[in-house]
Amino acid sequence: MLLSDGDLMEGVSAEAASLAGHLKLGKLICLYDDNHITLSAATSMSFTEDCAMRFAAYGWHTQMLENGNDLAAIDRALHAAQAETERPSLLLVRTHIGYGSPHKQDTYEAHGSPLGHEEVILTKQALGWPVDPPFYVPDQALAHFRRAEEQGKRAEAEWDKRFSAYAQAFPVLAKEFQQRMMGELPHDWDRHIPMFQADPKGLATRVASGKVLNAIVHTLPSLLGGSADLDPSTHTALAGMGDFQVPHHEADNLQGSTGGGWSYAGRNIHFGVREHAMGSIANGLAVHGGIIPFTATFLIFSDYMRPAIRLAALMELRVIFVFTHDSIALGEDGPTHQPIEQLASLRVIPNLLVIRPCDANETAVAWRVGIESRDRPVALILTRQDVPTLDRTNLAAADGVRRGGYVLTDIPDGNVPDIILMATGSEVSLIVAVGRQLAQHQIKVRIVSLPSWELFETQPRSYRDSVLPPSVGARLAVEAGATQGWRKYVGNDGDVIGVDHFGASAPGKVLMRQYGFTVDDVYACAMKLINLKGQAWIDTRLSQQQETMGKK
Amino acid sequence: MLLSDGDLMEGVSAEAASLAGHLKLGKLICLYDDNHITLSAATSMSFTEDCAMRFAAYGWHTQMLENGNDLAAIDRALHAAQAETERPSLLLVRTHIGYGSPHKQDTYEAHGSPLGHEEVILTKQALGWPVDPPFYVPDQALAHFRRAEEQGKRAEAEWDKRFSAYAQAFPVLAKEFQQRMMGELPHDWDRHIPMFQADPKGLATRVASGKVLNAIVHTLPSLLGGSADLDPSTHTALAGMGDFQVPHHEADNLQGSTGGGWSYAGRNIHFGVREHAMGSIANGLAVHGGIIPFTATFLIFSDYMRPAIRLAALMELRVIFVFTHDSIALGEDGPTHQPIEQLASLRVIPNLLVIRPCDANETAVAWRVGIESRDRPVALILTRQDVPTLDRTNLAAADGVRRGGYVLTDIPDGNVPDIILMATGSEVSLIVAVGRQLAQHQIKVRIVSLPSWELFETQPRSYRDSVLPPSVGARLAVEAGATQGWRKYVGNDGDVIGVDHFGASAPGKVLMRQYGFTVDDVYACAMKLINLKGQAWIDTRLSQQQETMGKK
Repeated sequence: MLLSDGDLMEGVSAEAASLAGHLKLGKLICLYDDNHITLSAATSMSFTEDCAMRFAAYGWHTQMLENGNDLAAIDRALHAAQAETERPSLLLVRTHIGYGSPHKQDTYEAHGSPLGHEEVILTKQALGWPVDPPFYVPDQALAHFRRAEEQGKRAEAEWDKRFSAYAQAFPVLAKEFQQRMMGELPHDWDRHIPMFQADPKGLATRVASGKVLNAIVHTLPSLLGGSADLDPSTHTALAGMGDFQVPHHEADNLQGSTGGGWSYAGRNIHFGVREHAMGSIANGLAVHGGIIPFTATFLIFSDYMRPAIRLAALMELRVIFVFTHDSIALGEDGPTHQPIEQLASLRVIPNLLVIRPCDANETAVAWRVGIESRDRPVALILTRQDVPTLDRTNLAAADGVRRGGYVLTDIPDGNVPDIILMATGSEVSLIVAVGRQLAQHQIKVRIVSLPSWELFETQPRSYRDSVLPPSVGARLAVEAGATQGWRKYVGNDGDVIGVDHFGASAPGKVLMRQYGFTVDDVYACAMKLINLKGQAWIDTRLSQQQETMGKK
Repeated sequence: MLLSDGDLMEGVSAEAASLAGHLKLGKLICLYDDNHITLSAATSMSFTEDCAMRFAAYGWHTQMLENGNDLAAIDRALHAAQAETERPSLLLVRTHIGYGSPHKQDTYEAHGSPLGHEEVILTKQALGWPVDPPFYVPDQALAHFRRAEEQGKRAEAEWDKRFSAYAQAFPVLAKEFQQRMMGELPHDWDRHIPMFQADPKGLATRVASGKVLNAIVHTLPSLLGGSADLDPSTHTALAGMGDFQVPHHEADNLQGSTGGGWSYAGRNIHFGVREHAMGSIANGLAVHGGIIPFTATFLIFSDYMRPAIRLAALMELRVIFVFTHDSIALGEDGPTHQPIEQLASLRVIPNLLVIRPCDANETAVAWRVGIESRDRPVALILTRQDVPTLDRTNLAAADGVRRGGYVLTDIPDGNVPDIILMATGSEVSLIVAVGRQLAQHQIKVRIVSLPSWELFETQPRSYRDSVLPPSVGARLAVEAGATQGWRKYVGNDGDVIGVDHFGASAPGKVLMRQYGFTVDDVYACAMKLINLKGQAWIDTRLSQQQETMGKK
C-alpha cells in the first residue's frame, strides 16, 4: 500500500494504523512516499512529526530508505518487511516529486498540475532520455512489466492447481469458499430468524436486531463485524463466536470479550473508538470478498464515518452499517448525542439504502434485505428505547419493508381515505394509536409505514400511487428527525411533524412529549389538515358521527 | 485539558496533537485519564499503542504518573509541564475507574452506569467514608474548593488592575481588545470590499471570495484562518499577513508561505491535510473570543469535518467555513471529489447558515453576512469554475442575498408569472439565459436567486410569498446537487433539475452538459411544466406569440 503525507496527516490513518499494530497484522506493508511536499507547501509548513517513531509507538516495524530511486534497497526492505510476520511494516522512502524536472522537482507545482510541454522536454534531457516519442517507454521498463504479466499467469496457474487439489480433498469447504467469494448466500441462511410475538411493551429495535444477528451468525459464516466500543449498547456482539484478536490464552476472561476465544478466526472485531477506520476497514473487507462485514455505533457518530459510508455507496460495496440510539428519545446524553439531521443526511447519499424499521418484525426483514443486498451498502437505523411489537393479525405483514413503504392499516371498506398518516421507526406505533383515535371520530384514516425511502422509490409508480394516492392531499408524516425531504411525500397540502432544532438533556419520554410526539399533538395536527377540507366536509362528517353515536 | 482512551483513539486527536507539536504550543497541557477501561471493554481489547512514544513522536513533552491519587506528584508534573514552554505536554496518569468500589472498580460497568445504591454504600465503607449523608462532601474538599473561589477572585482583581494600567498606557489598543472580545466589528470594516463589474466571462466565486477576503483582512484584525493544505485552490491565503508558525528566519522563502514572516502573530494557519482538526481548532478559537476564525477546503471534504461543523452550530459559534469546488463542474478529479449530497447535508444541520452565491457580487454580500453573523456558523459554498458576473443594471442588486432568496428579474408588467425558475450558485446564470429564451416565446417568467434557504426561511411569510407566489404552480429549481429538500419550494406541480447519483471523471463542462445543465434541457423542462397548464392555455399563448411575430 502506498501512503502520502496527506494520508499520514488524516486522522483515519492514525485510527487504522493503531488498530493494525494492536492486531499484529504482519502481512500489511505500507510504503510512505516521503517527498517533503504537499499539495500547497513544503511539509515543514505543517507536518514535522517523527513518522517512524509514531508508527513504532503503534507497534509497527519501520525502515528508513534514503533514496526512493534505489530499487535494490527497496526490494531488500520489502523482503525484510515480508519476513516480519508479527508486526505491520512501514517503509519510509525519501523521494523527490517531479524527479528530474529542472524547474519543478521538489515543488508543489508538480503535485496537481502537469509539467507542461517545455518542462517535459527539459526533464527528459536532464534524465538522458530521448525527447521523442512524446510518450516514451524504455525497453527495459517494457520488458519488466511484460515479465510481471508472465509471473502473474504462473502464479494464477499455480493457485488454480492448488485449489483443485484442495477441492478434491475438501469438496464441501471448497464449494463454500467459492460461493462466499462469489457473494452467494447459503441456501437457508435465514432459517433461524425469529418471529416476534405481538407485545404492547415490545422491545427496542436494537435489541431485536441483536437477536436476529445472533440467529443468522450460525448459518452465515461470511458475517464478520463489530462496533466502535459499543457492544453492550448496539447489541451487535456475536455471542461465543470468538474475538478477532492475536491468539492469546485466557482471553475470554478479559472484559469485553465476546467468548469463543481469541484468534484470527474470531468473528467479532473490536474496532475501538474509531468510527472512521471502522467504516473504512469494513469497506476493505467487502472489497476483499468472501465476507459480509457489518459495523455498529450510535447514529450520531455516523458523522464521524461519513466519508467511509460514501465510498461504500460509490464503490457499490456490500456493507451493513448498524446505527442505534436513533433519535432524541435516547434521552439524557443530550444534544451532542441526539441525532437530528443524520437520517436525512444518510438518505441523501446516492446508492445507500437506509432502513428504519418500526418494530422487531420489521427489524428482522430489514436484516434480510441488508444481507441480500449485494451491490449497495445498507444503513439500519435502530432505537435505543422499547417500541411495541405490532400485532400483525390486524395489520399488514412486516414483509412490506421490502417495498420500502406499505399500508399498515386502512379503512375497512376500501374507500378513499380522508387522511394518510405515515411514519418510520419508533413513530409508527404512535401514528397507529392516533389512527385508532381518528377512526373513533369517523375519520377514514390510512396508516403507512415507510421504513425505506430508497426501496419505496424503486417501486413502480402504480404501487407508490396505491400506497399514497395522489387524490388524497391530507397527509401527515411523523418522524423524530429533521423534516428535510418529507415534503415530496406529504405534498403541498400535507404537513410534517419532525425536529428541526437540536435536542436537550432530559429523559427520552419527556423530550418526545415536549417536541410534540404524543397522540394528542399528532391528532390535533391531523385534525387541522382535515379541517382544511372546509366546513361543508366537516358538517357532513359530524352528522355521520352523530348518527353513529345515536345508534350505540 | 482532560483526555480519555476514546479521545486518544479518535483520529481527530492525532490530527490536532500532530499540529500542536509542529506549532510548539508550549502552553497546552493535557492529562490522559489512563484507566485501562473503555465503555465496553479493557483497553487491551483494542488500544495497546505506546501513547507516550506516540506523543513524543509528535514533538510533545511527556510524563508518566503511576498513581492518579498522588496529588502531590500530579502537582509537580503540572509545574514541570508549565515550565516546558517549547512543547505541549501530556501527563499520562494511571487511574482506576470506579475507584474504591469493591465490585465495580476497574470495570466498564462503572463507565456508563451509576454504581447503584448498595455499591455506593460499599464503596464509601471501603474508602472509610461515612455512609450518611448520601451526598457527602468532606470538609477538606469543601475548604479546597472554597479556596479556589478566593484564588479566582484575586486573580480576576489582579487582571483587572493590570488591564486598567494597560488601558491607560494604550487606550486605543485596549479599546480594540475589548471590542474584539465582545465580538464587535470595527466601524467600517467592509469599506474595501470591491464592487465587481458585469462581465459575461466572469470569475469563479472562489476567486471573488479570495479578493473579498484580502480586502477585509486589513480592516478586520480579528480575522484568522487558513485551509487544509489547499491555499492555491481555495483562494483563502491572506497575502502578506504572516504565517502562524514558530518564529523562524528566512521562512518566507519556504514553499507555501503566505508572506509577512513566521510568528504567532501570523494570520494564516496552515492546518495540513487535517479537516476534522481544522474545524475543531476553529471552534476553539471562536470559543476563546477575540477572533473570527475561518477554514477552507473542498466541499466534498466537509464530510471529514462534519462533527466539528455540527458542534459549531450547536454551540452557536461564529466560524466561517469556506467550501470551494462545489459541484460536478469541478471536473476531472472525478466522483470521489465531486460533491453531490454535501449541500443538502449541510443545509439540514440546525443553526448552520449555508450560502451559495451565484456570482462575484453575491459572494461579496455572502462574506458580509458571514462576518456579521454572531451566533451561528456560516458555510460559504463556492465554485471552482468561472461564472458570469451578472449585469445588475438589468437585475436586482446582489444585496438580496441578505434575504436568502430574491427576484432577480421579472416580467416587466408585474403580472403573475407563467413560471418561476429558481437556482443557486453557478446555476443562476443558466436560468437567467433560459429565462431570456422563454421570454422570447412570450412566456412570462420570473427568475429567483435562492442562495440561502436558512436566510429565506427567516423572512416573514409575506415576503416569501411575494418571491414565490402560492398561485404559481409551475416552478422549476435548478441546482447541480442532490434534489432532497427542494420540493418545499417547487411544490407538487413543479420540478427539480439536480444530480441524485455520483458524478464521473470528465471535464466539468462535459458533465454539466451530460447531466442536463444546459439552456436547451432546462428550457425543455420548463416548457413541459408550462404545458401541464393545458392546451387552451397554450393556444392562447401561441396566438399571442404569432401576433407579436406578425408585428415585427
